[in-house]
Amino acid sequence: MKIVHKIEEVRSAVSEAGGEGKLVGFVPTMGFLHKGHISLVEISRESTGYQVMSIFVNRLQFNDPGDFKNYPKSIEKDIEMAKAAGVDLLFIPDDTEMYSNNLTHVNVDLLTLNLCGAHRPGHFEGVFTVVSKLFNIIQPHAAVFGQKDIQQAVSIEKMVSDLNFPVKIIIAPIVREEDGLAMSSRNKHLSEEQRVSALSIYRSLKRGESAITDGERDVERIISLMIDVIKTGNPDSIDYVTAVNYDDLSIAEKITGRTVIAVAAFWGTTRLIDNMIIEPHGDGFKCIY
Amino acid sequence: MKIVHKIEEVRSAVSEAGGEGKLVGFVPTMGFLHKGHISLVEISRESTGYQVMSIFVNRLQFNDPGDFKNYPKSIEKDIEMAKAAGVDLLFIPDDTEMYSNNLTHVNVDLLTLNLCGAHRPGHFEGVFTVVSKLFNIIQPHAAVFGQKDIQQAVSIEKMVSDLNFPVKIIIAPIVREEDGLAMSSRNKHLSEEQRVSALSIYRSLKRGESAITDGERDVERIISLMIDVIKTGNPDSIDYVTAVNYDDLSIAEKITGRTVIAVAAFWGTTRLIDNMIIEPHGDGFKCIY
Repeated sequence: MKIVHKIEEVRSAVSEAGGEGKLVGFVPTMGFLHKGHISLVEISRESTGYQVMSIFVNRLQFNDPGDFKNYPKSIEKDIEMAKAAGVDLLFIPDDTEMYSNNLTHVNVDLLTLNLCGAHRPGHFEGVFTVVSKLFNIIQPHAAVFGQKDIQQAVSIEKMVSDLNFPVKIIIAPIVREEDGLAMSSRNKHLSEEQRVSALSIYRSLKRGESAITDGERDVERIISLMIDVIKTGNPDSIDYVTAVNYDDLSIAEKITGRTVIAVAAFWGTTRLIDNMIIEPHGDGFKCIY
Repeated sequence: MKIVHKIEEVRSAVSEAGGEGKLVGFVPTMGFLHKGHISLVEISRESTGYQVMSIFVNRLQFNDPGDFKNYPKSIEKDIEMAKAAGVDLLFIPDDTEMYSNNLTHVNVDLLTLNLCGAHRPGHFEGVFTVVSKLFNIIQPHAAVFGQKDIQQAVSIEKMVSDLNFPVKIIIAPIVREEDGLAMSSRNKHLSEEQRVSALSIYRSLKRGESAITDGERDVERIISLMIDVIKTGNPDSIDYVTAVNYDDLSIAEKITGRTVIAVAAFWGTTRLIDNMIIEPHGDGFKCIY
């Protein structure tokens, strides 16, 4: 595995791989890697022959400079994990390499207003801007984003389509612990008791899924069922339980097409998110992942 | 010359040219071509081997739907001129091919506030967005923009640098009639008398240039001299006479580095613009074009 810090080094390595006829896959990360990130590399490898991963904590997507400064880091472990996962090129730029008096911003309207966007003004603009930069630096054939942050994944799909980036976006299913809890670097902040209680998020999504596959189409009723289930885990607060249309992330009233059911809730100060994608199948609906 | 209307046709033609080892040059236009546009192709050819031109009247950069609808068109003449200029690939998409429910926008802060930007809210965002799309569709090695619209050229240079587009931006000098009037599709709207009077724009820039090369560094005094000269042509109104720093298009107070002196004025309802770029040279300054 080659580790590079400069944009020109990336261009040169990727160009060499391209010269050898390899398709380039790309997994952007902010480091502090866990199994979820590694699964993205594995999915990338299914359709490409040269794996690029970036580790860059993107200042632009933090509202709070303190959060940016305190973002957890484990660079030595990250390097080991990336290597073990078969990453070919690991790009670790510093802030100066990425942002030198940056005045340019990319934005996608509408999609960022619901779900987590309402709580993080400017966050998604920061994400779109850095992803545009990374796409232009790496020029990958495919890039993989986790379904966990569904709003990010869907809005990047839209950005790529709108701006005609020659990149195939692959959305990778959520990786779960054996009991169903979605993997997250935040899970380690949960006490043993909270860890068990937080499973009510997954049960809540499963309840929404079964309601829909059993024929319920009214979103208000579905959400009410889901809230009942999530409450059995006594979350300290529920941020949202919602169903949105996949294409534009607008709030759904009836289940008609591909839909995302999504939950965000706090146990203590730890905010957990999770979602499922459900789409028409035959006469009914099924969860695709 | 190949004429295509679909994005996929462009990708396929450009990929073929790239496969033959040709560097790709790109000249974006809104059609209604004149010699100025053709000069951009000639400049592109100096450093690339395959010339792509686009003709697309970009809805997003018009504030007034009427102006968009009434934008002059001469597609058959354009095709002849492009062919004669040695364009290899002419891309003429329709509105649907370029914008299908577009929600994504690219913006560059600050640079668009001075000069013409103040009068055209949203205009530059439309330009940045369509240029980003065209760069991603065509993936050129170099793209040529005219110095005539200096604000557009400099802010696209900044966008390309900020977002790391792998495209070299070439700024082509203003093409002038023999008497110095900058070429423009608008010149045909001038009466014979206005046509002569409007030369005071060019004389005004020359006056600014000579003041600077003679050692004047105070922008207020330079602009005062320029205004005196432009007034000799009795413009119906003067929009601006200004000097801005090249790097960020901020208003200059003293001439210190690379500077743009720029003029916009009306004769009748016809708005004419012109500029010169002046930069440090030895102990003094010179006009570079």
